[in-house]
Amino acid sequence: MDIIKETNLKQFITTVRELVEKKLDELVPASQTEPTRLHEAVRWSLLGGGKRFRPVLMLAVGQAFGCEPDKLIATAAAIEMIHTYSLIHDDLPAMDDDDLRRGRETCHKKFDEATAILAGDVLQTLVFQTVAEDATLSADIRIRLISEISRAGGTPQGMVAGQALDLAAESREISGEELENIHSSKTGALIRAAARCGAIVAGAGENEIEAVSEYASSLGLLFQITDDLLDVTAHVDALGKTPGKDKKAEKSTYVSLYGIERTREMALNVHGEALGKLETLNRDISLLKEIADYVLRRES
Amino acid sequence: MDIIKETNLKQFITTVRELVEKKLDELVPASQTEPTRLHEAVRWSLLGGGKRFRPVLMLAVGQAFGCEPDKLIATAAAIEMIHTYSLIHDDLPAMDDDDLRRGRETCHKKFDEATAILAGDVLQTLVFQTVAEDATLSADIRIRLISEISRAGGTPQGMVAGQALDLAAESREISGEELENIHSSKTGALIRAAARCGAIVAGAGENEIEAVSEYASSLGLLFQITDDLLDVTAHVDALGKTPGKDKKAEKSTYVSLYGIERTREMALNVHGEALGKLETLNRDISLLKEIADYVLRRES
Repeated sequence: MDIIKETNLKQFITTVRELVEKKLDELVPASQTEPTRLHEAVRWSLLGGGKRFRPVLMLAVGQAFGCEPDKLIATAAAIEMIHTYSLIHDDLPAMDDDDLRRGRETCHKKFDEATAILAGDVLQTLVFQTVAEDATLSADIRIRLISEISRAGGTPQGMVAGQALDLAAESREISGEELENIHSSKTGALIRAAARCGAIVAGAGENEIEAVSEYASSLGLLFQITDDLLDVTAHVDALGKTPGKDKKAEKSTYVSLYGIERTREMALNVHGEALGKLETLNRDISLLKEIADYVLRRES
Repeated sequence: MDIIKETNLKQFITTVRELVEKKLDELVPASQTEPTRLHEAVRWSLLGGGKRFRPVLMLAVGQAFGCEPDKLIATAAAIEMIHTYSLIHDDLPAMDDDDLRRGRETCHKKFDEATAILAGDVLQTLVFQTVAEDATLSADIRIRLISEISRAGGTPQGMVAGQALDLAAESREISGEELENIHSSKTGALIRAAARCGAIVAGAGENEIEAVSEYASSLGLLFQITDDLLDVTAHVDALGKTPGKDKKAEKSTYVSLYGIERTREMALNVHGEALGKLETLNRDISLLKEIADYVLRRES
């Protein structure tokens, strides 16, 4: 498949979402395949909407370096799977205990806790199977992608470590630095990995990968800041998950630490940083700029 | 490191256990590394005993094909990690709800449910990071190992699928065929993968890998049959987990389906099958034979 022609972000997102949905549908066993309840649960959480932000970012970075979607889509789907497994487990009663996700019941509400635990587990397994078996990429590239994704998804700097830090920070006041550290692991690491994987598959140089990485770090931070703003300003219909849950859980957020106005200023500053990091790349960065704009202005 | 000289199984097991403990200790962040509670929980479950049966099998197969432990030990540790993550999650209140494992409190009893879920999650992540970053192996071999382990750990034929089938079979009478199908996925797949990975790293031919695979299938079945026998005959001190739990959970077992005497006969038959499959290999199979004998006669 050729480079996606649309430079307009809205069209690009629509195209990537279609590609990702199709790939995810192929990668997960059919609902009728035994054990059916497990596969229904995986499909319920994985194919029931979602912004597909990480795949969009990965394909946009790949595109900036001239890589066609065929070589990117399996890894992009894998990154969406690791993100989805984390949502399923984070929503469990023992963790955030949430009933609503992506505009529908959470996995354990729709099915049951045991099934939700296993659905998350098997989604993580599928992540690594998918990348390991992606015949469009060399073995060396696949190994590097697995290393990137596992470090971003694991510990001590990755997603699970971030969730553990987040749980430990509940019901107590934390510093801005601590908050940034939590989010850098919990959500930032995987956003960074999505961008890095796009550059790696596209054959970018190490300096370029680092620049993309720094752009994605700012983007991840921006994403979290706007998430905290949306949690206090958005309605449930637009958000697709329960708003106001941070306050209910007595979680520290950018808004609770700095107030709405200062948090909005921070968002503008971080957006500027993200754009600044793109300037060092001698590539067509229009789409990556639009993504930063989109994250700044998003309403869900 | 040279081939392990001891052909006596007891000495071999002791040596492999020491190698695996050391490798696992290296692979998991220290307890003092943030998030400390997560790393303490991982270490509690991973380094608190355990037979290390899968690593022993993998190294014994590798040894039969002339491969030194250095190239096998990281993958063997990874397979022990995927096994341990499954134990942590299977023991959760929403699943088997067990208080005792490997002779000590289960992870969620010692820590809490959220930490146990995350400890299992991050152990699975570490599995794939470990294999992807094992510099003693070529990228092609690493990719193949990750594919083998993920299929064995996942769905529709792997460990998580087996656990889902097992949960669905609780509180109802199932057929012998169904029971074998559950165990072939739940525990057989990973035992098979351990043996296959040993042969793959050692550079065995495809026919040899298949023969090893069939031997390991019989061994896995034998392991399950003796597990069911031990569940009704062993004491908690020897078992290190709660005996009689299958009956309490109204789970179908070989003993509940066939009675103790016929189950003992089945064990002898399956042991004979395992040995028969080794005969096709033109290798030193003494250790692999001893492992089959050990599984037949084990008391814990």
